[in-house]
Amino acid sequence: MIAQYSILLPACKRGFHIITEEVMRHIPVLPETGVMHVFIQHTSAALTLNENADIDVRKDLDSWMNRAVKENEPYYMHTLEGADDMPAHIKSSLMGSSVSIPITQHQLNMGTWQGIYLGEFRNNGGCRKIIVTVYGE
Amino acid sequence: MIAQYSILLPACKRGFHIITEEVMRHIPVLPETGVMHVFIQHTSAALTLNENADIDVRKDLDSWMNRAVKENEPYYMHTLEGADDMPAHIKSSLMGSSVSIPITQHQLNMGTWQGIYLGEFRNNGGCRKIIVTVYGE
Amino acid sequence: MIAQYSILLPACKRGFHIITEEVMRHIPVLPETGVMHVFIQHTSAALTLNENADIDVRKDLDSWMNRAVKENEPYYMHTLEGADDMPAHIKSSLMGSSVSIPITQHQLNMGTWQGIYLGEFRNNGGCRKIIVTVYGE
Repeated sequence: MIAQYSILLPACKRGFHIITEEVMRHIPVLPETGVMHVFIQHTSAALTLNENADIDVRKDLDSWMNRAVKENEPYYMHTLEGADDMPAHIKSSLMGSSVSIPITQHQLNMGTWQGIYLGEFRNNGGCRKIIVTVYGE
Repeated sequence: MIAQYSILLPACKRGFHIITEEVMRHIPVLPETGVMHVFIQHTSAALTLNENADIDVRKDLDSWMNRAVKENEPYYMHTLEGADDMPAHIKSSLMGSSVSIPITQHQLNMGTWQGIYLGEFRNNGGCRKIIVTVYGE
Repeated sequence: MIAQYSILLPACKRGFHIITEEVMRHIPVLPETGVMHVFIQHTSAALTLNENADIDVRKDLDSWMNRAVKENEPYYMHTLEGADDMPAHIKSSLMGSSVSIPITQHQLNMGTWQGIYLGEFRNNGGCRKIIVTVYGE
């Protein structure tokens, strides 16, 4: 079987946010065995998996990203859309635009500490659209 | 259904290049609903998704990568294949060797501004081989 | 067809390790055409593809990662689990928690020089659990 869901995430402030529950709220059923592919339709935000417990992990990851990919680098040429825009594009390719998670016995088979992160890299990114494709048997 | 295509990309100069049209030219049909997996068979190049409009995004992403992953670091030991080789390996793992894109109503379901990027990290990388696997119903 | 395997990797020391053979040892058969999805259930380790030949590539990649994502940054707040923990979380999102590899004629269709890397980012990460999902026809 294959099933697909289009989900509009509410606007999040810049930083990393756990969206596992928000995503799964839209998925009525999972196959016994399979893979869930979660894809973000944007180039200034990203999806990744990381720790679902201590909120400081999300904050530290964001702090590191902001230092590694700085705003206002003198060599940036793509600057018309704001100081946060080109760094957001770079961050989106570093983190990736999709995550794929195994499904086992009709459940997502992540580790105990894993959650789905939205990386919102714009100051005012607005709503973000994701496409979830579930396939398996 | 599942279908697979082996595509040889023409040699590209070092930097990021949009290959969406070049890839899709080889894919005669997509299922109604599914996922398209695009895989590069090399460890000194990568695939990622990013903005398909302003060419400056590709240039700035390349500029950032070249500063983040420098050539001739004194601690590099893998140096026999040239100054651009070890940085190319690092960049390939940072960007990733594949992208997976949802298929909806027989079309790639990317966002308006998304395109498939080839990251060519060698000065003379030559042709690059990619394997596209399309699955769905 | 779809098949899934749960594999416990023996404890590895910090750094990058090629696990292609260890993984494939657990996969009795591959479909004629398909994709193999390899997923790690942890947030302080990662999976990536890179060169399977010169061991110096693994060492240099680790050296670069340790310099790019330093321990004991004064702005880290998630510090209770040790100096290597928060860097490990950052590295895991940079490299990614899964790899997807095409299957062609019942074989993994990687490039000649590609291998599956485990990125172990903790000093004492212990055994790591991965879930392999194979699908195709």
